[in-house]
Amino acid sequence: MGFFSSPIKTMDDLYLHTLQDIYYAEHQITKALPLMVDKAGNSALKQAFKKHLGETEKQITRLDEVFKILGKEPKGATCPAIDGIIKEANELMSDCDDTEVRDAAMLAAAQAVEHYEITRYGTLIAWSNQAGKANIAKILEQTLEEEKATDQKLTQLGETNVNKKAAA
Amino acid sequence: MGFFSSPIKTMDDLYLHTLQDIYYAEHQITKALPLMVDKAGNSALKQAFKKHLGETEKQITRLDEVFKILGKEPKGATCPAIDGIIKEANELMSDCDDTEVRDAAMLAAAQAVEHYEITRYGTLIAWSNQAGKANIAKILEQTLEEEKATDQKLTQLGETNVNKKAAA
Repeated sequence: MGFFSSPIKTMDDLYLHTLQDIYYAEHQITKALPLMVDKAGNSALKQAFKKHLGETEKQITRLDEVFKILGKEPKGATCPAIDGIIKEANELMSDCDDTEVRDAAMLAAAQAVEHYEITRYGTLIAWSNQAGKANIAKILEQTLEEEKATDQKLTQLGETNVNKKAAA
Repeated sequence: MGFFSSPIKTMDDLYLHTLQDIYYAEHQITKALPLMVDKAGNSALKQAFKKHLGETEKQITRLDEVFKILGKEPKGATCPAIDGIIKEANELMSDCDDTEVRDAAMLAAAQAVEHYEITRYGTLIAWSNQAGKANIAKILEQTLEEEKATDQKLTQLGETNVNKKAAA
């Protein structure tokens, strides 16, 4: 059974498990972001992490709403993928002494987090639509758009600011 | 020091570490894909996994070429992120008895792998360009385009085939 709280037999089980996976991931992200805000040297990067912390809290509220629509208790399922991404980010943060190199490393780690969220929300939206749950798809689409915008903002920051200083 | 073989002090250290991270990830993917080919029930999905296995082998050859340009020995650095993504995929594969639900789970897992690769190659291309290594950026861009195409192919498969059957 591994880390699944109940067997995955049907698409409904898989759908619920994936919701629990991203619910756990979002909670882990809210725990990791304050340290990233604290450690960021570049003010635009610090600001981007702060903004994303606020967004992540809103995204958890949206997931609470989805669980409510489904008549299920909101709960997380351990997600080794996000644990691995965050573990790597934490190790890099504690390993880099140089502020600008650490900023570049944190920016890359944050983009890995965003891409994980983009793929999971993309999957959940597709499954919601296929199961006739357009109302849930609509809620999750708001989050997906925010994740994509954050990823683009981080790409832009890397191109214009953070990485250039580190490479100089 | 965690799982880093040497301290990350400069952008060159971070760049090399990230290359080693994706080198390790690609090797783990070549180990995971044969089981996914074997377990896939849907023939189009099986075909997509087979094709991606061939591409992954080519992508490793490109990374070997990048290490050579840098005058470094090709080697991997343990990447907890890809380990987590693959662990989750393996648990889902062994946990799902229903072929169509398992196909949907594997498709979602494969997209998580693709997004991890997309973010890492995106970062490496940005860093290559900033460090004046346009020749390396060009090599990695070929891989990035393949990863994006695979992700799109999987999205399309999910929309038209695999998930619809599972939800039916």
